Amino acid sequence: MTAVGTKQHHARSLAEVLVEGDHRGHYSHGLNRMDMYVKDIQTGICAKDGEPVVEKESEATALVDGKNLLGPVANDVGIGWVVAHNSNHYGIAGYYAMQALKENMIGMSFTNTSPLVVPTRAKECTLGTNPISVAAPAKDGDSFVLDMATSAVAIGKVELHERRGDPIPEGWGCDPLGKITTDPKRVLTGGGLVPVGGSEATGGYKGYGLGMMVEVLCGILAGAQYSKYIRTWKVTDRVANLVHFVLPSCEI
Amino acid sequence: MTAVGTKQHHARSLAEVLVEGDHRGHYSHGLNRMDMYVKDIQTGICAKDGEPVVEKESEATALVDGKNLLGPVANDVGIGWVVAHNSNHYGIAGYYAMQALKENMIGMSFTNTSPLVVPTRAKECTLGTNPISVAAPAKDGDSFVLDMATSAVAIGKVELHERRGDPIPEGWGCDPLGKITTDPKRVLTGGGLVPVGGSEATGGYKGYGLGMMVEVLCGILAGAQYSKYIRTWKVTDRVANLVHFVLPSCEI
Repeated sequence: MTAVGTKQHHARSLAEVLVEGDHRGHYSHGLNRMDMYVKDIQTGICAKDGEPVVEKESEATALVDGKNLLGPVANDVGIGWVVAHNSNHYGIAGYYAMQALKENMIGMSFTNTSPLVVPTRAKECTLGTNPISVAAPAKDGDSFVLDMATSAVAIGKVELHERRGDPIPEGWGCDPLGKITTDPKRVLTGGGLVPVGGSEATGGYKGYGLGMMVEVLCGILAGAQYSKYIRTWKVTDRVANLVHFVLPSCEI
Repeated sequence: MTAVGTKQHHARSLAEVLVEGDHRGHYSHGLNRMDMYVKDIQTGICAKDGEPVVEKESEATALVDGKNLLGPVANDVGIGWVVAHNSNHYGIAGYYAMQALKENMIGMSFTNTSPLVVPTRAKECTLGTNPISVAAPAKDGDSFVLDMATSAVAIGKVELHERRGDPIPEGWGCDPLGKITTDPKRVLTGGGLVPVGGSEATGGYKGYGLGMMVEVLCGILAGAQYSKYIRTWKVTDRVANLVHFVLPSCEI
């Protein structure tokens, strides 16, 4: 990253997130993603210079304009709420939620992402895989860490099945008409992932609602890009302008 | 409720929640539940007297011991975090999240519940349907309200299919061995609901994680009952001691 001009301490932040991704077994979000970050810097899609700026704040809330956000810790009032826009792919959501563990606090972290998910009763990708992460300290150094996309699966899993010529389970994706399909090709060409829960009959609208919740707390709350207005996945002709939501909270 | 001895203003609080439940189409959680509340008072399982007590608080957080909680609003610091234990069935989770809308704020509300859900790779009910609700104000008096159980469906839906002699869709429930089944009888006799996402292949572990998150933020955070230690659904030989989590937050 420094070879393409990223500042030393920004590169270090990224390295920590990516290594944590691999360490936790989210290999899709570890060093595997390096080429994407490098390319984003090379094409100028992602800025090399500058630092995040706090645009607005109250005692326990902040609106941040910038990238590489690490949420400030709100020990005094017991809870904090931070929204950061004008950002880029932030690796695994769990990394940010887990920052709170060091302070014996509960952390939450959500982010909106490029549209890959077709809502229940729809046929267009209008939501990202919008992940939710919650981390809570437990006894003897243990912890509870939830780190999940609100889609049934990641797009990479569908790609893997397609390459192997295998069908996908019912409840992963839909065809261009929004119908649940077991053909990975149809998901990848004009179709899309479906929200966790799968079809309407099995509660896919719940995953849809969770994806919407993440979008409301990220893109919409920050007054930034949201839903299908976020750039397409891996398209590099415009900036991502993603929004992250971080909530670190003390033990009560 | 007043006929069985509930205080006038507690009865009014309950009435408001139940009517809102019916109004929003959650008929299972509306006046339909009245007999349960009446019975809980008659058997002494639910207390008639007393008021909620704030046990511990910081500028923006509170631990409340009591029932019929309506979360205090944290306008000053921009966000608030309240956990209430020693409580009972609180109707629809959405009612509490929606209180924030009146202040043009975003509200969240979760509660733990009696164990009815079998986690992924398990065969015992150790989680409730642990609902998640998030409400956010929108333009022109509109709003976004998510109000969902973290199970694929409510137990009532399975009962309905059983009464009609219909099979249930794959992904609603499992048999006593934890295997996904389409036979509602097996779900109701020794089996259980499965988390939203259904089987492991279709992401049921995500619903399991969300149910756990609710439990961590409710029963465990409050140091109260949790998981399978919560009384069995509709059993009336001991108090419920449920825990609710409420987070009202200002617009940033």
